[in-house]
Amino acid sequence: MKNYDDISAIENLSEIIDQAILLKKNPYQFSTLGKHKTLVMLFFNSSLRTRLSTEKAAKNLGMEVTILNVNDSWNLEFEDGTIMNAATAEHIKEACRVISQYADIIAVRAFASLQDKEKDASELVLKSFLKYATVPIVNMESAIAHPLQALADAITIEELKTKKRPKVVLSWAPHPKALPHAVANSFVTMMQKIDVELLITHPKGYDLDPAIIKDSLIEYDQETALKGADFIYVKNWSSYNNYGKVMSHDPNWMMTKSKLGAAKFMHCLPVRRNVVVEDKVLDGDNSLVIHQANNRTFAAQIVLKKILENL
Amino acid sequence: MKNYDDISAIENLSEIIDQAILLKKNPYQFSTLGKHKTLVMLFFNSSLRTRLSTEKAAKNLGMEVTILNVNDSWNLEFEDGTIMNAATAEHIKEACRVISQYADIIAVRAFASLQDKEKDASELVLKSFLKYATVPIVNMESAIAHPLQALADAITIEELKTKKRPKVVLSWAPHPKALPHAVANSFVTMMQKIDVELLITHPKGYDLDPAIIKDSLIEYDQETALKGADFIYVKNWSSYNNYGKVMSHDPNWMMTKSKLGAAKFMHCLPVRRNVVVEDKVLDGDNSLVIHQANNRTFAAQIVLKKILENL
Amino acid sequence: MKNYDDISAIENLSEIIDQAILLKKNPYQFSTLGKHKTLVMLFFNSSLRTRLSTEKAAKNLGMEVTILNVNDSWNLEFEDGTIMNAATAEHIKEACRVISQYADIIAVRAFASLQDKEKDASELVLKSFLKYATVPIVNMESAIAHPLQALADAITIEELKTKKRPKVVLSWAPHPKALPHAVANSFVTMMQKIDVELLITHPKGYDLDPAIIKDSLIEYDQETALKGADFIYVKNWSSYNNYGKVMSHDPNWMMTKSKLGAAKFMHCLPVRRNVVVEDKVLDGDNSLVIHQANNRTFAAQIVLKKILENL
Repeated sequence: MKNYDDISAIENLSEIIDQAILLKKNPYQFSTLGKHKTLVMLFFNSSLRTRLSTEKAAKNLGMEVTILNVNDSWNLEFEDGTIMNAATAEHIKEACRVISQYADIIAVRAFASLQDKEKDASELVLKSFLKYATVPIVNMESAIAHPLQALADAITIEELKTKKRPKVVLSWAPHPKALPHAVANSFVTMMQKIDVELLITHPKGYDLDPAIIKDSLIEYDQETALKGADFIYVKNWSSYNNYGKVMSHDPNWMMTKSKLGAAKFMHCLPVRRNVVVEDKVLDGDNSLVIHQANNRTFAAQIVLKKILENL
Repeated sequence: MKNYDDISAIENLSEIIDQAILLKKNPYQFSTLGKHKTLVMLFFNSSLRTRLSTEKAAKNLGMEVTILNVNDSWNLEFEDGTIMNAATAEHIKEACRVISQYADIIAVRAFASLQDKEKDASELVLKSFLKYATVPIVNMESAIAHPLQALADAITIEELKTKKRPKVVLSWAPHPKALPHAVANSFVTMMQKIDVELLITHPKGYDLDPAIIKDSLIEYDQETALKGADFIYVKNWSSYNNYGKVMSHDPNWMMTKSKLGAAKFMHCLPVRRNVVVEDKVLDGDNSLVIHQANNRTFAAQIVLKKILENL
Repeated sequence: MKNYDDISAIENLSEIIDQAILLKKNPYQFSTLGKHKTLVMLFFNSSLRTRLSTEKAAKNLGMEVTILNVNDSWNLEFEDGTIMNAATAEHIKEACRVISQYADIIAVRAFASLQDKEKDASELVLKSFLKYATVPIVNMESAIAHPLQALADAITIEELKTKKRPKVVLSWAPHPKALPHAVANSFVTMMQKIDVELLITHPKGYDLDPAIIKDSLIEYDQETALKGADFIYVKNWSSYNNYGKVMSHDPNWMMTKSKLGAAKFMHCLPVRRNVVVEDKVLDGDNSLVIHQANNRTFAAQIVLKKILENL
């Protein structure tokens, strides 16, 4: 693995998942692999799970970790040829090349703005690092993808499935704010690559990018969609067609204990209680959210391990 | 020791103090005890001494340390059953359980608001971590207690006392701002548990919580109180009865070299020079403030050591 | 070396430069020297290169590193004898002595204000640490000096020079904002100490502090100055005489590929593209800026190594 900018970077997915499950059993078995190697984690947006799990993963491998929170005082220029006599003080070209002098791997988080569909789709920050940095890049959630979350989710399903080909439903939920598509995009992409029966359900007007959905099935009636589900992954996203807009607050789309039935409940967190999902689900035995959070460490660790082995 | 949320968590105090003094002589003797263990330090308020000393203590024990500064972008919900469709984005239940996935010990700082006596007394943040986290919790100053400071102070007195039962006076001092009761509370509680003659002096209207004071003696005349003192611990706090109010700026309560006499001067820092205490005291030979600051490391280290031994 | 507050702290400069070049070949050869030693890095201003390179340097030597970003909530008093009943909450005396309890070396960054020439020249923050801290101090850019950058630049020139005594030109460049003199000051001071032919060129009104310039040559005509240059170090600074003012935005002073000719281009970064220097120079083969950034690590590492050896 050279980079982990997107799920497509994984060549042998089922092997990676199996190796992550083995790592979880003995997280320190490769604790010298990262000796004298530095991971620089660069956050253009705030982070809890991703920061703690990726940092822990790197340290489990013996790496040094440095965290940079990009704030307003570091005003980066992304355009080529600009006469930089205004607000921007450093060009992304220099920034990427300079950080590469101090890092063996750079992990980057830069969310979607949800203001400009084309700009978000271009993934300017992540792609700039892929282009200009001279070390491997790990995506800690970009404008349109969150591949470390999706890998943790695949590990979770692999660990807890009770049949060879479980039914997995991605079910939209209401949320007061407009949220990015990254988690949903990467979850769909990941499910398309592992042996599950994927069904997506959401209100009309919430269709995800067709280039992501491909031939995955969509069922607009949530009740129908959830029937016989083994895993229900609940997640809000804003409209893709009416880009970044909140089209519905319909509380009927909230996940409830009665809708969940015997299925396992999944969510990437943070989650709005009693808006996205009711308390009874989160506090019930079928909730996997903490299990998923735990697997973030091993998703990051197997990715860092593969990259370290190719340095 | 399971948690160190309060001084009451210490079962055998004199033994702990003795062990801390031994640790100070050889801080690295247990430098493999914390191997592959992570301390997550969570600051809801800023910190200098507590952060540096606790981080150093953990690293002396071989732990990994991660620091999270909670800022406005991480808006936590503390109420049960809330429909989270407003400002709060993550419930403390998930936050505690998630951080527990990446931490072996969580240390938390969350000050009093001084706005609402009952709310502060409930210690919502600290108690939530004690309730929901699945790993031990260390109190790095909560709304009403600062047990790591009090332990460092007890260590300092034990090291420097010249008689078996020294006279220790806690003397209120003026301050331009309203300050919490945490340091004074924990100092009183600690002194009640070690072999000293404790006397508390402050202007009328500044009585601390009676549940803390118990049968400790109060003398409202500072001059009378200070007579024959071996250690004088100076500290401002706001009114407890007239909760969070500044009732007096009386400069006569400032500690001076002439009041101090031959006694040792103690303060937790930071300190307002020439308001709380005059320069001559802080710059004089009888000031123990830097010695106390140094002992913060060993107070934290003995606490972390005891917790690690019980993991 | 006791401190590295300024270039004058280096006794045997050519030996230090040679040792840094050797360190670069094997950065981990002294990886146990800093065991159980802590570097506290204290930033009163933001940092990218200095932070990452100094942190990496310290870790290459086996040190623990702690980073403190000084923000508005930590309001320090610098005056003696103040009655601290207003905004300042902690005196620099206590701050320095306290941090010294947890650090074996303290590195400090505190920029010029460019408001008050005498105050900047007094280097209040750095000098306070030198006065009150009880451990060695490293200057990570003070009001008037940036000696770690200058050492990295000297290393770069030593590595890449093709003649015994290269011609080095420091060429002023335009910039939209008023910038400090620290980099230019330290570069001039460093060049005066190594075997180069130094020439300084800038518009009239931009003369640096005569105490820095000493008998170094100034040529106000850039074209004349650049003739036969081996290394051209481009840097903006604000006026020293008309303190902190921007006297010229003249784009003719921008470095271009045609002006550069066969010379090597140097800049400390960050750099405003097409204002300070045109894209063709930065993106061309003669640019050393990334090489310089890389050498920041080894400049810091040799300095920390020398200090550690004297602890």
